[in-house]
Amino acid sequence: MSEIKYYHHKESFALESGARLEGLTIAYHTYGTLNAERDNVVWVCHALTANSDVTDWWPHTVEQGCFLDPGKWFVVCANILGSHYGTTGPLSENPATGEPYYGDFPKITIRDMVNAHRLLAGELSIDRIHALVGSSVGGFQATEWIAGEPQRFGKLILIATDAKASPWAIAVDETQRMAIFADPTYGERRPDAGMAGMAAARAIGLLTYRGPEGYNLSQQNPEGHEGEHRACTYQRYQGEKLCRRYNAYSYVTILDAFDTHDIGRGRGGVSAALGRIACPTMVIGLSTDIIFTPAEMKVLAAAIPGAVYHEITSPFGHDGFLVEHGQLNDILTPFIN
Amino acid sequence: MSEIKYYHHKESFALESGARLEGLTIAYHTYGTLNAERDNVVWVCHALTANSDVTDWWPHTVEQGCFLDPGKWFVVCANILGSHYGTTGPLSENPATGEPYYGDFPKITIRDMVNAHRLLAGELSIDRIHALVGSSVGGFQATEWIAGEPQRFGKLILIATDAKASPWAIAVDETQRMAIFADPTYGERRPDAGMAGMAAARAIGLLTYRGPEGYNLSQQNPEGHEGEHRACTYQRYQGEKLCRRYNAYSYVTILDAFDTHDIGRGRGGVSAALGRIACPTMVIGLSTDIIFTPAEMKVLAAAIPGAVYHEITSPFGHDGFLVEHGQLNDILTPFIN
Repeated sequence: MSEIKYYHHKESFALESGARLEGLTIAYHTYGTLNAERDNVVWVCHALTANSDVTDWWPHTVEQGCFLDPGKWFVVCANILGSHYGTTGPLSENPATGEPYYGDFPKITIRDMVNAHRLLAGELSIDRIHALVGSSVGGFQATEWIAGEPQRFGKLILIATDAKASPWAIAVDETQRMAIFADPTYGERRPDAGMAGMAAARAIGLLTYRGPEGYNLSQQNPEGHEGEHRACTYQRYQGEKLCRRYNAYSYVTILDAFDTHDIGRGRGGVSAALGRIACPTMVIGLSTDIIFTPAEMKVLAAAIPGAVYHEITSPFGHDGFLVEHGQLNDILTPFIN
Repeated sequence: MSEIKYYHHKESFALESGARLEGLTIAYHTYGTLNAERDNVVWVCHALTANSDVTDWWPHTVEQGCFLDPGKWFVVCANILGSHYGTTGPLSENPATGEPYYGDFPKITIRDMVNAHRLLAGELSIDRIHALVGSSVGGFQATEWIAGEPQRFGKLILIATDAKASPWAIAVDETQRMAIFADPTYGERRPDAGMAGMAAARAIGLLTYRGPEGYNLSQQNPEGHEGEHRACTYQRYQGEKLCRRYNAYSYVTILDAFDTHDIGRGRGGVSAALGRIACPTMVIGLSTDIIFTPAEMKVLAAAIPGAVYHEITSPFGHDGFLVEHGQLNDILTPFIN
């Protein structure tokens, strides 16, 4: 549907930590056409190990009649800083050494990811953004971006996310790091370092993305099943699948960035930052999400002036946002128009 | 309060797999006095990495006025087969080699653990058991035992457990094994093999024992906190703490046994086995337990004739059963009498 594009930013890019990246590549996808008024932009922020091709990871959203209808909207999604999918990250060449960064890639924050998005928006001559959409870590970027530029956006859509990483979510990340660091190949200067650790980390993540109902619905042993439990082979399969498409340095980089998320940092706290959001906002929770619980999502919605909270009923936990496109489109198509 | 005791069973012990242990040591604790009628026995089954000293891991239960009042009951708890705390396990000497078993310890099942309990009951000349108590994996043993001998028990108390391991719980176990196997020292013939992996595994377990509310309540960074998140240091601390007191071979042995739990195996299915329980039964769930959810506990209670379900309100998830002794005693003291 859409080809990956690259913006090569030649200048130095300052990170929140004070470190700098000397030059930056941003991989991105666009869908649809920017209209003459340049007022039909919908910016989608992607989650953890996803990429800039929204049609790849979010089925039945970028389609005619769906909420990201490319006949109506100019949809932009940029691969996040530190990722494996084209934007500068740990496997990119470190200009100081001529070798990939690997473990030397600097620590980044969600704010750094957003600053990269802003660079790309500038490159595309996009000023006003009609709607900003983020789910999960994508919502981290969305809340961070609107907190920094509250007047830039016409509408805000937050799905299964928060304005600050919770202790629970940070504990999940630390546990994943512990699994990766238990694999002593992590640290070796090769793209496939730490694979056994990353597979375990992914399996940890999946537990929290799917939750009890998700597993009990989809991973029951069939009648008369012999041998290994289906739940076991599923965990290993999912771990191996990530190892075939990702690298452990990017994984750790993004987990670390996740934990830095706090839109209130330097802005007088989360409540103050959320209180400055002035555009219509839709907050969507998932009934069985154990990573961003419905209770947490209601607190988020209540802190944003005039925000509407909607809960999607799904047995698939946090991953329900990737699956329940019917409910999502029903809620979001009228909202975004 | 009570000294650890050992029963050395000299004969061969057949495992469900067909393998045999040549001789078996069972470590156990007792509290209170067996009365002349031998009818005041309360048997407590312990969970995953606990031990036979109930007072060590379950505060304010084996006390005067509490539900395991040692002035009234003769409380027995045996360390489970495969464990680190005195009963035969992977660090025990393999009589065939004169060396510890380590990774050669045979695979065991919950049914094997119960058969060891039955040996000990025979040794103590205990026939009738007034009440059988099990929480978590302790409840696995309790449901397995009563399914095998439905007439032996006067009362049954099941806390945060199930009659069969769910796909979700098995997925949690497999993920822990993946973390342990990512540590290549696991497999080395020494008691401290696989420690980094086991630390990560423990951190995974803790996520599921405490859940979102537990972490968000207890692991918030204090105001003005600098440096590492409290949730991160907590996860690592808990992992290291287990490494100081346990071994990875026992940990894997018990995870594997957990996954075998199915009281319906060879008994016409779980429903049929639960349907034969004839004694008064109390089933207790915890409001925020994500490992044995309240929904799962209600299904368990509904399948046991006449069982009463009670839900403890606690923010501490599954671990609430270790913490909420006030509510537990309120429910269980009248029930057990």
